[in-house]
Amino acid sequence: MQKKILLTESEMPRQWYNVCPDIPNGLQPPLDPGTNQPIGPDKLSAIFPMGLLEQEMSPESWIDIPEEVLEIYKIWRPSPLIRADKLEEALGTKTKIYYKYEGVSPSGSHKTNSAVAQAYYNKKAGIKRIATETGAGQWGSALSFAAHKFGLECKVYMVRVSFDQKPYRKVMMNTYGAEIVASPSPDTPFGRSVLEKNPDSPGSLGIAISEAVFDAASREDTNYALGSVLNHVILHQSIIGLEAKKQLEKAGDYPDIIIGCCGGGSNFAGIATPFLRDKLDGKNIRLIGVEPASCPTLTKGKLAYDFGDVAQTTPLLYMYTLGHDFMPPGIHAGGLRYHGMSPIVSAMVREKIIEPMSVHQIECFEAGRLFAQTEGIIPAPETCHAIRATIMEATKDLNKPQTILFNLSGHGLLDLSSYEQFYAGSLHNYDYPEEAINAAMANLPKVG
Amino acid sequence: MQKKILLTESEMPRQWYNVCPDIPNGLQPPLDPGTNQPIGPDKLSAIFPMGLLEQEMSPESWIDIPEEVLEIYKIWRPSPLIRADKLEEALGTKTKIYYKYEGVSPSGSHKTNSAVAQAYYNKKAGIKRIATETGAGQWGSALSFAAHKFGLECKVYMVRVSFDQKPYRKVMMNTYGAEIVASPSPDTPFGRSVLEKNPDSPGSLGIAISEAVFDAASREDTNYALGSVLNHVILHQSIIGLEAKKQLEKAGDYPDIIIGCCGGGSNFAGIATPFLRDKLDGKNIRLIGVEPASCPTLTKGKLAYDFGDVAQTTPLLYMYTLGHDFMPPGIHAGGLRYHGMSPIVSAMVREKIIEPMSVHQIECFEAGRLFAQTEGIIPAPETCHAIRATIMEATKDLNKPQTILFNLSGHGLLDLSSYEQFYAGSLHNYDYPEEAINAAMANLPKVG
Repeated sequence: MQKKILLTESEMPRQWYNVCPDIPNGLQPPLDPGTNQPIGPDKLSAIFPMGLLEQEMSPESWIDIPEEVLEIYKIWRPSPLIRADKLEEALGTKTKIYYKYEGVSPSGSHKTNSAVAQAYYNKKAGIKRIATETGAGQWGSALSFAAHKFGLECKVYMVRVSFDQKPYRKVMMNTYGAEIVASPSPDTPFGRSVLEKNPDSPGSLGIAISEAVFDAASREDTNYALGSVLNHVILHQSIIGLEAKKQLEKAGDYPDIIIGCCGGGSNFAGIATPFLRDKLDGKNIRLIGVEPASCPTLTKGKLAYDFGDVAQTTPLLYMYTLGHDFMPPGIHAGGLRYHGMSPIVSAMVREKIIEPMSVHQIECFEAGRLFAQTEGIIPAPETCHAIRATIMEATKDLNKPQTILFNLSGHGLLDLSSYEQFYAGSLHNYDYPEEAINAAMANLPKVG
Repeated sequence: MQKKILLTESEMPRQWYNVCPDIPNGLQPPLDPGTNQPIGPDKLSAIFPMGLLEQEMSPESWIDIPEEVLEIYKIWRPSPLIRADKLEEALGTKTKIYYKYEGVSPSGSHKTNSAVAQAYYNKKAGIKRIATETGAGQWGSALSFAAHKFGLECKVYMVRVSFDQKPYRKVMMNTYGAEIVASPSPDTPFGRSVLEKNPDSPGSLGIAISEAVFDAASREDTNYALGSVLNHVILHQSIIGLEAKKQLEKAGDYPDIIIGCCGGGSNFAGIATPFLRDKLDGKNIRLIGVEPASCPTLTKGKLAYDFGDVAQTTPLLYMYTLGHDFMPPGIHAGGLRYHGMSPIVSAMVREKIIEPMSVHQIECFEAGRLFAQTEGIIPAPETCHAIRATIMEATKDLNKPQTILFNLSGHGLLDLSSYEQFYAGSLHNYDYPEEAINAAMANLPKVG
């Protein structure tokens, strides 16, 4: 048996796959919150470069990856597909488990795939500086690296709870030359208003997005970059699934189940969407998106138009949401603490193409530890959600011969403080935060 | 240009290369400190399994890698050889720079190569538990992982200064199921005696070795494992250079210079020794071992018999040494804070096969940051020494077409606190600690 299935650089995909045209019944357009009418590229161009806006709304199924982006992808791509035979053995299962390992990127996760593309298109548009937010720190690290590669400045608003728990993330971003501030921050009017109400606010992705959007909108030389949710981000991440498909072919295999963790949806959609056409053509393949029980957007949220941020500054997106002012408990998988979900993933859940699943964090860390002890790699807390679901599927019927592909979206080497708390027994499972969700749901914007 | 030169699992070497028979004028045997006579395997078998002792003294040039070890190597090996074209570009040099990336192993460094082999032979000998020391934490992490793989318990004595600076290392070792204590520790008589004299002792590898050896010698079920210095460790690390040679052949290249950092000597010897026969056959190839100016074993030490540890419990090794009770300044490259040097590397320096070089830490961190910004990977502080030397060689004459191969022995993701201190400007360069070295040199054991 071959443990690692590798592709050469010349086998790396030269095009991204745009799933949008293939989604049955399509996507609802983003709306201008002022008029409730579909928002055009002109208005969005204040904070996004036209190259990305074209991708955001493209009807094309395949989009060329620019040479300059491929050149940087080659630093770590193609990423390996690895057979988790030692995990299989520990579980005593007949299920074959493969994982696509995106932790090999410089910043340690799949986020770098989109960061490099976004930095490239911003540079091409003459932008000098990018502002962004980061939850767990994976996206901020990725964008810091990518921005430096294209000679752009980078300012990162990092969710306070992660900022405090993960000091090494800041050092990594500093290494790549970026400026970092804990969010809510004193650097923006919205950050200051949150701090006035609650100086100890743990922050949230929704708050940090508001700050970064404000920063970008208020400076001519600065654009905004988002690490998940939007169509162009999912587009860039499709390289994960495109590579995995080629690699499984090489291994003479095909997945019965594809699993990824879901925060904004980008790593899951990245690995899953390139298999959509096969599924629509009748292939019997399950796509499982895994979210935390404490922030259960897909399993307990509502499909509706909502803001992407707390300050209500973004366009309205049609997505599963818990309400833009839902404040999730401070669980350690900071990358999954988001009230909304990518419109692409949302539409695929609506169409029953994707099965959502929610899991509790302690079981996730248990899964992560088992994975580290068997396969060697210590996974990020976010990724542990995918591993937990993989283990559940692989052990439902130990004798069922089936194949699971999951996305090991990032390593957990900069998240070891959360493992430490897990070993110390100081982590809790948060039950479905019903009251907070109901309150936030009541604040959804009225549309149409 | 191909960025990454990969080998398939079937191209992975099936034998380790034992350099000992090829070293001109050979090695001096280790001595029993009681009798000053060569020490036999019988006496060493109290703390080492016979499988490793046979390797330690083997006259064979090639030794088969057991299937069980290859099986675990396949988790991350063969490791990639990567062309540092983006670093070359930043330097404006015509030198071609390749690096062998050993940071892909589960514990993040080359140490895993020997850890897996050592755990295997101990398991085979019926041992239940291994005691060891660790400086920076790389070796302790590697052995924790390897021991768990073979169902062995593992106790790690971690040099206090690293223990405090690198809390994530402890969490990693815990993840792999090991028990960790800061050294000097209250767990051994020698540790207690050091603590009595100096409760704030920062520790040293020499002290931690004494503790681990005592632990192993005092328990029937426990053996000792050393992560560098000894011949069998260098043997296991030869897989690095053997792979690199194959990979350079694939790239149609051959190194003019091979560079590695030197603490105990294992990563440097691992990449360099497989090229020794070519050098002896007349190939014009320079082998450069790089050590910290604050612990200048090869450049300022003496070639003599000395103890491997502070408590004078190990056999006497014929090696470059600063004296077994030399206490190096607490620089951040904990893996390079060792008074001695592998007898193999020492003999090759004696024969003028290896050129030793010493560098200061601040310049090393500068080199590490430039490497991260260009090549993406944040290197371990130890590895930064090799990168610093590589940059010096590549920029001596920018127009000289030459090829450098260096060993990127480990990533620095668990060492980011030292980068943080570097950015904050709170690191110092330690000059040659002449007085401390002179004092320690006066205490060398009298032999012959």
